[in-house]
Formats: sequence, structure tokens, C-alpha cells
Amino acid sequence: MAASSSLTLSQAIVGRAISSHGSNPTPSDRLSLPAGFTLPSFSGLKSSTPSSSHSTRLSGSRQIRLSSRSRSAIKAAAVETLDKTTETSLVEKSVNTIRFLAIDAVEKANSGHPGLPMGCAPMGHILYDEIMRYNPKNPYWFNRDRFVLSAGHGCMLQYALLHLAGYDSVKEEDLKAFRQWGSRTPGHPENFETPGVEVTTGPLGQGIANAVGLALAEKHLAARFNKPDSEIVDHYTYAILGDGCQMEGIANEACSLAGHWGLGKLIAFYDDNHISIDGDTEIAFTESVETRFEGLGWHIIWVKNGNTGYDEIRAAIKEAKAVKDKPTLIKVTTTIGYGSPNKANSYSVHGSALGAKEVDATRKNLAWPYEPFHVPEEVKKHWSRHVPEGAALEAEWNAKFAEYEKKYKEEAAELKSIIKGELPAGWEKALPTYTPESPADATRNLSQQCLNALAKVLPGFLGGSADLASSNMTLLKMFGDFQKNTPEERNVRFGVREHGMGAICNGICLHSPGLIPYCATFFVFTDYMRAAIRISALSESGVIYVMTHDSIGLGEDGPTHQPIEHLASFRAMPNILMLRPADGNETAGAYKVAVLNRKRPSILALSRQKLPNLPGSSIEGVEKGGYILTDNSSGNKPDVILIGTGSELEIAAKAADELRKEGKAVRVVSFVSWELFDEQSDAYKESVLPAAVTARVSIEAGSTFGWEKIVGSKGKAIGIDRFGASAPAGKIYKEFGITAEAVIVAAKALC
Amino acid sequence: MAASSSLTLSQAIVGRAISSHGSNPTPSDRLSLPAGFTLPSFSGLKSSTPSSSHSTRLSGSRQIRLSSRSRSAIKAAAVETLDKTTETSLVEKSVNTIRFLAIDAVEKANSGHPGLPMGCAPMGHILYDEIMRYNPKNPYWFNRDRFVLSAGHGCMLQYALLHLAGYDSVKEEDLKAFRQWGSRTPGHPENFETPGVEVTTGPLGQGIANAVGLALAEKHLAARFNKPDSEIVDHYTYAILGDGCQMEGIANEACSLAGHWGLGKLIAFYDDNHISIDGDTEIAFTESVETRFEGLGWHIIWVKNGNTGYDEIRAAIKEAKAVKDKPTLIKVTTTIGYGSPNKANSYSVHGSALGAKEVDATRKNLAWPYEPFHVPEEVKKHWSRHVPEGAALEAEWNAKFAEYEKKYKEEAAELKSIIKGELPAGWEKALPTYTPESPADATRNLSQQCLNALAKVLPGFLGGSADLASSNMTLLKMFGDFQKNTPEERNVRFGVREHGMGAICNGICLHSPGLIPYCATFFVFTDYMRAAIRISALSESGVIYVMTHDSIGLGEDGPTHQPIEHLASFRAMPNILMLRPADGNETAGAYKVAVLNRKRPSILALSRQKLPNLPGSSIEGVEKGGYILTDNSSGNKPDVILIGTGSELEIAAKAADELRKEGKAVRVVSFVSWELFDEQSDAYKESVLPAAVTARVSIEAGSTFGWEKIVGSKGKAIGIDRFGASAPAGKIYKEFGITAEAVIVAAKALC
Repeated sequence: MAASSSLTLSQAIVGRAISSHGSNPTPSDRLSLPAGFTLPSFSGLKSSTPSSSHSTRLSGSRQIRLSSRSRSAIKAAAVETLDKTTETSLVEKSVNTIRFLAIDAVEKANSGHPGLPMGCAPMGHILYDEIMRYNPKNPYWFNRDRFVLSAGHGCMLQYALLHLAGYDSVKEEDLKAFRQWGSRTPGHPENFETPGVEVTTGPLGQGIANAVGLALAEKHLAARFNKPDSEIVDHYTYAILGDGCQMEGIANEACSLAGHWGLGKLIAFYDDNHISIDGDTEIAFTESVETRFEGLGWHIIWVKNGNTGYDEIRAAIKEAKAVKDKPTLIKVTTTIGYGSPNKANSYSVHGSALGAKEVDATRKNLAWPYEPFHVPEEVKKHWSRHVPEGAALEAEWNAKFAEYEKKYKEEAAELKSIIKGELPAGWEKALPTYTPESPADATRNLSQQCLNALAKVLPGFLGGSADLASSNMTLLKMFGDFQKNTPEERNVRFGVREHGMGAICNGICLHSPGLIPYCATFFVFTDYMRAAIRISALSESGVIYVMTHDSIGLGEDGPTHQPIEHLASFRAMPNILMLRPADGNETAGAYKVAVLNRKRPSILALSRQKLPNLPGSSIEGVEKGGYILTDNSSGNKPDVILIGTGSELEIAAKAADELRKEGKAVRVVSFVSWELFDEQSDAYKESVLPAAVTARVSIEAGSTFGWEKIVGSKGKAIGIDRFGASAPAGKIYKEFGITAEAVIVAAKALC
Repeated sequence: MAASSSLTLSQAIVGRAISSHGSNPTPSDRLSLPAGFTLPSFSGLKSSTPSSSHSTRLSGSRQIRLSSRSRSAIKAAAVETLDKTTETSLVEKSVNTIRFLAIDAVEKANSGHPGLPMGCAPMGHILYDEIMRYNPKNPYWFNRDRFVLSAGHGCMLQYALLHLAGYDSVKEEDLKAFRQWGSRTPGHPENFETPGVEVTTGPLGQGIANAVGLALAEKHLAARFNKPDSEIVDHYTYAILGDGCQMEGIANEACSLAGHWGLGKLIAFYDDNHISIDGDTEIAFTESVETRFEGLGWHIIWVKNGNTGYDEIRAAIKEAKAVKDKPTLIKVTTTIGYGSPNKANSYSVHGSALGAKEVDATRKNLAWPYEPFHVPEEVKKHWSRHVPEGAALEAEWNAKFAEYEKKYKEEAAELKSIIKGELPAGWEKALPTYTPESPADATRNLSQQCLNALAKVLPGFLGGSADLASSNMTLLKMFGDFQKNTPEERNVRFGVREHGMGAICNGICLHSPGLIPYCATFFVFTDYMRAAIRISALSESGVIYVMTHDSIGLGEDGPTHQPIEHLASFRAMPNILMLRPADGNETAGAYKVAVLNRKRPSILALSRQKLPNLPGSSIEGVEKGGYILTDNSSGNKPDVILIGTGSELEIAAKAADELRKEGKAVRVVSFVSWELFDEQSDAYKESVLPAAVTARVSIEAGSTFGWEKIVGSKGKAIGIDRFGASAPAGKIYKEFGITAEAVIVAAKALC
């Protein structure tokens, strides 16, 4: 970033000399160089190890080789570092400001994680002060670089950086209210609380997967909208992840895809501090992360001195940017709690306040004379430029966009709708509708008709399946595959990686309001991605989850593949819509609801088996969550109310026909979404489920847990409270008593 | 296995010559050797590529290097293969028998996955006919080799092998009933349906993680019980996993631990057929699996011709067994649907029947003149030896154990109790009990007292945490860490790998009835491991899940860490106990229940915050699921019933005290486990929750979903139906209205 450039070569060299004096000897003991140590197979930066004192920061436990590619990379990096850097003494002052803002906030809250911010302050400073392009006064500027703190417990690092950069969301009083009720500085980064925070992290591994989604979105939009004369979409995605994130399977899933897709503008910093909550990572984590990432197709760089090696970090970022066809992992060896004389490099500094005594000792050790929360004037002054510079960056881009708009009207309009999240007028008219005469079909197939209809009218609509596209029926026929060399396409192939898929979709969704990602697998395998789905709900990420094979109706694959408790488990989750449509119109209605709910994810449970199009089903009905499908009663006084969802609504309707033949006044209610029904007026609810009518029978091929709320203590819930079985679907329905006969018997017992 | 040896060197060579003729050219087209191809960095087996026709079976898309270690390995392997093999023509007949049993069963069911069995039949044959030690007439013989089909959809491979080997669980009629109601041959392998199947697989990645658990159990028991003069515990664990398993994060988690622990007797076959449901793995899976596994610390071998390279496979297994300090991944390049002239090597053969026409074509192509389900006489005869040999193996081991028992009385008794799963008499007396005078404490701490008490009396009790031992309070103080060089210890360090942890515990649990594994993380992170927990419930694996920080009571970490819907989500799951103890006695009771339920997993939700020991709490009460804690009413007619669980029972008790001061007759009910209460007699239920008393108030710091069942439509459920917040715990409880005041107000409104 030209603006942060201020020095000559000679000054930079002096600066580096100073920095090596500034380094804290404490942690170097266990890091002494082992005999027989050989150079890395990824580029260690020669420029970063002028003195042996630096190279001794290497953790001894890794076995490494040197490739020719790396040697050349080293040279390049070494040369490139020696331009434009800030005077090192000021950098160190800024870095220590970040460290102490974290220390002081955690101390005041007497709760939090000081260790990571203290160790990662140097990379954090360089990212926010020298590298990243953003506008503090508009955290939502479209073309900003994205930053994700995957190791979310270290959120004070990000809060300190946002504070220094001039974001209104993190003022001094916010830092002082860290982890307190109603503050904008919660215990983990939350995009819905703190503008400037892109995604919600803390559950380990989610953040790096979100970052893959953010980088995918950039690559996709750039491919669609950039022109030879105008690179209108052009930003990087940066992430910091720790040892914990690295151990999580979701991180490996997402990083394997990032390598496959060649996300060259994704740059991840691996905070290699060798400490996790249980102590040294040696007790559970001795794999070679760099070899694994080599296998995943990443470019790997190792910064041996993450504590004071500012030029190493700068050179690594330069090298990473120079590699355009691969994501880069920058392994930065740091000392957790750097600067704390008695707690650095131990788990004790990971997750609790240092304590007054150690805070004083750390102030002495880092020569920090200031009061808690104090930002030295020269640091303030230095960072103050980011507000005007950020405004200038956005203005520059706006001008560029105005030019673009003149030349490329159509593309500009499309991109604008993605940036603003405005749905094109009349988009919902694209949704198909059906009549009882329409052929019976599985809702997974009807879903595909909706997906393809929506893709035609929604420019930000894209997604795919976890290797089940042909079973989930999720292919968009008018588009090809999003791949390394065809990123403009919209069919995303996630492979068998449900958890990574969900978190990647969260990243896509939170990149731009107009991006509407969907993803798919068998409903039962929401168990694999539940942590990501919960983050969708919490972080107000309107991902559409297309979940097929939603009951014992899938048949022979058996109990491992048959969801039972899943509907209940999502009905209990806050801020998510669990939708189970029964036919074509209801499937279209479910998609209408899902598209309109941009701050609430939707799960569509869809059938593998064919279902008839039912008289009375409607899109409008679905929007109310529960509605009367058919009724032969009058005065809102049916003899009995039969309630069904999805594939069992047909069964309820059949039972009603029989009961009516016997003269009963029967109401059939479709209960496609409990959450939407809860949001209706009491009058409407009474009109569908009159309190006076206690004769109620529900039928759903899933757990009866929760149904007492709907059928009442006098009613009967027909469902499945055991695991499924392997057999043809019809046989299982019969054996499990999910039949019209069972409904009729239950109804007669009640009226 | 000496008994399967029958040939001389010369015959073996003849045999191999035949085999290379027998190879089917069909699939080799897309597999032609790319220009610039270089040798692997793991040992490709020289012995396995006598003709170029073999090496052309290599999939072109991988870039590989050669290490010196590998070269020597090649030599060793090459030599060792040339003893004891069966005549190849007979091997091929046996292999084709396996293929056609799979083809015919899938065809008859018109449902299933023929592709994998057709491709993996050779490795399957060699494992069950030449390598593995088992007793068909006693599938539960303790010292048997374990086999796990992680790619569970290919279960017909295992059913065919169990059938040929003489297991009573899979007779011809069972094969003909594949995937039908009530059969012992369900759509995926289920240990509770089919003796001979060790674990339940199908959800991808679970099986290989189970295998890691089985191998961990063997290494642990061997270290504890083997003597210089008696290796009483000594078996291998074999697994077959496919591309799908390899993509799943759980597989990477478990395999990283397997490498860390150096599980040398774990040998995994990676069925590298390059096809998944969506087509060629090139569309989503281009990482180098071998490089990744090198990073994970595994020994890697590549069998280039898995279709007909029998000696390659044999040599690979020999080499794997020779590597004692690392698990081995044998990458076996196969052709999915091998033998099918028109469907081999395509996704169309993965998951559906070939169809009559293609079945005929395949019969012609593989020169198979037999009727469906026919096993040729010579194949029957050849396999018939496994029944007597298996009986001999077990008898031999029993004799060995008798010797062992004489010399090592104590160890023998302990090992026997682990093998039989008999709990030592009076074990439950070890559980601590408490009085109201006992100091208030967090149930996570009380849990640690129970864990340590149980470890003293239960020889098969072991477990650990996903890097939260110091927060979950799960360390067993009298034991050290289970590590590569201290496998006799019982504290397992799982790292931040919740999903892998759960599946590994399933493997440990299903290894021997007396092994009782526990594992721990924060309750909210059950979302990361839910798929493994569900398999515990389905496969009757009595794992104990120690889940702490079970509500907003954890405070400042905020909504990402605060469970809300989790209690409801597990109450809806079949065959699992969701226990939420309120104090010391209830925690002890929860552990008593968990230990006694060996075929049903238990989840203990435990508090981070201190809780008082309540008057009236008891172990016996917990065993009934719900019970009267205190009551000042008479005649089973209280004015109001207050119901609480876990940390909120204290609040209900406080509210009761206040209401009683005002003259109300108040019953306080602890509802620690809904499932256990449901199992009580109607009389008991009525004695706790009399139908006549509709004035009921429940309080629980979680979703109210499902509580209508307990409090009825006239009652009131106090809970949290939104996400949590970041603040001190007390503040959140107050702001969310989880207070005695709220209970009192609700109670007064009802009575």
C-alpha cells in the first residue's frame, strides 16, 4: 500500500537491526536448533534470519527438506522486502499498543484470551497498517480486503486493530466494556455485533472455512464482472488460524477445496505457537502441517520469527501475493503471550487474565510506561491516516465503478444488485406452480425446478452439493462447474465435505448481501455440518440448505441414512427456518421464504420418493407456516384436525377422505414450518388450530418430540421414536405404522 | 497364516504369470502412464509390476517422488511375497465369486452398490482368506483381527466374505434378502444386525475413525496385559476406505491421531478408484492423499494394480506388518465395477444395480457361467477350511490364556472382566455421595471426582478430552497419558478433534464389552461430533459423553459457546440418555446410570459454575429419571409443581421456599433424564406428576422446545428460545429471566 511507504533502503536495514535487539529471549530455550536440522521444503525467508538468534526461534520437532522452487522463492522475497516500511521503533510501539490493549481489556473483564493477541500483534499490525485496503468509516465497502480471525478467542487482537484503524464500532469505551452485557466487543468475534468483523468465529476451524468462502466469492465475482480495462472486483482474503483450527477436520476439508480451486488471493497466517489449552501441542498434534498443506496444493511460507521479524512477515505477504494460482499458508512461529516474563509460552496465558502482578511485570519487560488502555500519541497519529486513506480508496473505487457503469450497463446493474442485495422486481414470479393434475414427483425434483428457475432471475444465486448432486438434484442446468479455471460458473462441487461446505457457504453469504448460496446433502448428514448450520443461524447468514432423502422414505440405505430426530433438532434451534414442503406448490413456497429470509438460514427437507400435488396446497400457505389444506367443517368447529408435514401430508389427506365418507367434519392442516406459524397473529392461529378443538392427530415420519405443543395433551402424535430400518420404503412405512389407517384409528378414538 | 500356505516358489511364479493374463483391459484406457511420470515417495512394490501392462493401471493425475527408505522397502517386500500363496486361478475364481455375489444380491434387491465390491474383491479375498485371524463360529472371539469397511455402502463385499468364511450370520438366504425387511444384511454394515460386522458404517469417515479406536484399544490392552513370555493381546485392525472417506474431515482428524500414537497394527486400504457419486474425483478432490498422510506420520504403500495384482497386495500387507511404529495406508488403485464392460470406471456402477443386460455382459466378460448366488464347489471347498482353522485359533488362544491365568492371576482376572464386560461386584460403592453440608461445587468438578473414583474400580475405564481436559475436568489423576510410548496409560489426549474423538470412542467401546470410554468437550461442541454420537446410539455403543459448560452459565465466551437447543436435540434422538445432574449426588447417579448402560450412550451435561448440594437429591432419584426433590403437600395434591434440571433445579428450590412461606403446597421435581422417566411405571409417573395437577412450571436454561409434554398446555415452561450473550453468567441469567422471581410469578399465575 503505497501510502504506508516512507523509508529508504538504509533506514529499513537500521530498522531491522533495532528489531532484532527488541526480541525477547524468554521463549527461545525450548526452541534451540536440533542437530541435523535441514532447511524447509517451503520457503523460509533468508531475509528474515540475519542473525542466528532469529533462526533459533524454530521449533525443533519438524523434519523438513529443501526444494529448488523454494530457493528461488527465498531470493525473490529477500529482495522485495527492502522497500516501503514504517520506522521499526514506531512499529514496535504500535505492536505493543495492540498487546496492551488486549492485556488491559482482558484484565478489566477478568476474562478472555490475552495470549494470542500478544503473540500475533506483529502480523496484525502489518496487516491492518500496511497491507489491507479498507475504509474504517464504511466497514461494508464492497471491494475491501476481508480479514477473518479463525482463532476467534483472540478477538481482542481484532478489536484493538479496529480501534486503532478508526472504526466507530470499537471506541475506547467499547474496549473497556469487553465481554460485558450489551457491549460491541463480545467474547468472540460476531459480525452481527461489531461492524468490521466479517464473520462469526470462535468454534475452531469455522473461520478458515469462512475465509475460503469469502475468497471463492471474490474469485467468482471477479471472473464474472472484471473487464480487460477494469478490475472492478479485486480484493484479498486474510485469515489467522491457530493450532486448534489446524486440528479440526473442517479446516482440512475447506483447505483441500481452496487448493483444488486455486484460490490465489487467500492468504492464511498459521499462528504456530505450539501451545493449546492442554499444554504443548506435542501431546496430541505432531503431524507436519506444512507437508499436509503441500498435499492440499497450497503454497507454504515459514516466518521463523513472528515475534519481532517484521520484514519476514512483510516479505512473506509479498511472496504470497506473487503466487496467483494457489492459496498461501504463512506459518508464523510466535510465542503465545509474548512479553509476559513468567507466562509467555505456556497455556496459562491462553485463556485467562494475566493478573495484576504479571501485567506489571509485562509492562516492565516491554518497557511500557503507560496507563491501561492508553494509546501513545505517535501511534494514534500514525494510524490516523487510515480514515482519510480509506475514504480515498472507496472514492477511487466508486469513480472506477461509475466508469464501469457507463461502459458495461448490464454487468454494472447485476453487480450492483449483488452488492446491495436488492432482489430484482418480480423475481418470485419465476417460481413454478402446480395443480393437482400435475404429475406426482419427489420434492427433491421439484426443488431442482425451483433452483433452476431462481438461478435465471437471481444474479447472486449459486451453490452445490457434497458429492450428491445427482441425488439431491441440485445442478443448475444453464451453468457449468465453478472450478479453478472456470470460476465464473455457479455449480459448486464440494466433494464429500459437508462441514466445510456449510462454513464455506456462510463465507459466500456474508461476502455480499446479494450472494445467495445453497448447499445440499442427505438430511441425516446435517449431523456432519451442524456446527456450521448453527453459525449460519447465529451470524444471520441466509444460506439455503437443500436436504433431501428426508425420512425412512429413502428406504434400503437403512438407519444410518434415515433422519428421525433431525426435524425436531432444528425446530429447537434459534433463528433458523425448518421447512418440510409436501408437494410442488409448497416446495416453491419454501424457496420463496428461503430467498426472502436473508438474515435467517432455511433448511428444506425434501423427499426422495414421489408425492402427489395436493388440492389446496399453496405458496401463500407456506408463508404462514401452517394453513388449512382442506376442510369440510363449518364455524371453525371440525370434529378432528389432522396435521401433517411433507411426505405425510398426503397420508393425512387420504385419512380425511375416509373419515369424511363416514360423515366426519375433518380439517387437514399442513404444518410446513413451525417457526413461521409461531410468528402469525393469535387470530390466525386460532383460525387454523381452534383452542376448542382438542381432537388433533399429527403424522410425521420423524420423532414425535415437540409435537405435544401442536396436538395438545389430549391429541395424538403419530411418528417414529426409534431408528429406521433397511427395506423398501413402503414396507417400512407400513411396519412403522405411518399409515392412513393409523391416522383414522387415532382420529376415531378422539371424536 | 501358515495354514493358508500351500505352494512352492515356482508354483507361485506360475500363478502370478497366469494372473497377469487374467487382467481385464477394459478400464486401462484413461489410466495410461503420463509423460514425465516419476516414481512414488512411498514404496511402489517392484514385485507387483512385472509387466508394463500392470503399471499402466496407475491413475495419471498424481505427482510423486522416490525416497531411499522406500527403495529398501521395495526389496524386502518383493522377496517376502514369494512364499505361501494359493493357486491364482482359484484365487481369481474366489474373487469373481465375491464379485458376483455382490452383483446378484444388488440385482435381486434392485438396490445397492455393486461398484466397490467388484473393485475391492481382490483385497477382500486376500484379507479374509489369507491374512486375517478369526473364528467364523465365534465372531466375538477376543483376539480376532478386526475388519472395518469404512466405505460402508460396499457392504455386499463384507457380506460375501462373511458368507464364504462360514459365518452363520450370512447364509445364502441372507444374501438373497439383502436390504429387505428383517434381514441380517441391511443396506450398510450394522454390528447390531450382523455378527462379524465390528462397527456400524455408511456415514463416510466414521469407519476409519472407528478403526483407529479399535487399534488404540489393542495397543492399550497389549501394553497392559502382555508379558515377555505371553503375548495374550495381539491382533491387527484392517480397514477399507474410499475417496469419500478421504474427503471427510473426521478421517483426517482420526488419522492424524493414529500417526501421533504410532498405531503400527492399523493397516488401512485406500480404494483409489477415482470415482465418486458426482463422477471423476478430479472435479473436487485433486489433493495428494499420499503427501497428506506422509504429513500425518503414516507409512504409505501404493499397489498400482488392485484389480489383479494379488502379489502386490500380499507384499504390501507384509511390508505394512513390518512397519511397527506407524500405521500404514495402502493405496490400492482399483477400477470401480471391475469386470462390467460398459459401466466399469463410471459413477453409474457406484450406487445402483447393473441391470439384467449388463449383468449378462459382465458374466460373459469375466467368463462366469454360473447361476446367480452360486458358489463354485472348489471355491466352497477352499474356504471351508476357515471354520476348523478358526476354531483351532481360538482353542490355541484359550490354552494360551489358561497358561497366562496360572502365572498372572490378577492380570488375567482383570483382562477377563474386560473381555466379558462384567462389572466388578460393588463397583458402584466407589461413587461419592454428598450432603447439603458438602461445599458447593461445579458439576464438572464433581464429575471429575466420579471419573477418578470409577477409574479405580473399573479396569476398562479410559478416556479424555478434545484439548479441554483442564476445563472439562477429565484427567484421571492416578494415570498418565496414553501416548505412543506409554500406551498402558488411560488419559487420552484427543486434541481439538471432537468428531474424530467420538468415533474413536465408538471403536474402543465396540472392541471389548468391558472397555468403557468417556470423552469430553464443551456441550455446544457436540455439534461438531453429532454424527459420531448418533452412531453410538444406533450401534449400541455405550460411550460416556462428558459435556461441560452446559448453558449460558459459562458466561463471557458468549453465544458461540452457549448451548441452547442441545438438550432438546438429544432428547429427540433414539437410544441415548441425556442426563443433566443438579449437584453431587445427581452427578454420581448420572455416572451410575451411564456405566450400567453399556448398549446405550449417555451424555452428561455439566455446569461450569458452582452449584449447592440440594436437600433431597439422590442417586436413586436419578435412576428414575425424574423424582420428587422436596414437597410440602399431602395426598399427592400440591398446589403447584416446580420442575427443574441441572443448574436450574437450585432456582426451582429457591422459588419453592418463597412460595411455601406464603403457604403454598409446592412440589419440586428434578427432571434429570426424560428417557429414564419415560421408562418408569405409570403409577410412578403419576406419583411424581399427578395428572390432576396442571399447575406446573419448568425452568431450564435452554430451549423450551418439548417441555409442553411435561408441563402440559396449562403449564408454563421457562427457558431460552434465542441465542445467548457475552457477559458474566449472573447478568445473563437475570436479563434472560432465568430466575426464582420468574418461577414465582409463573407459579402464582397458575395457582
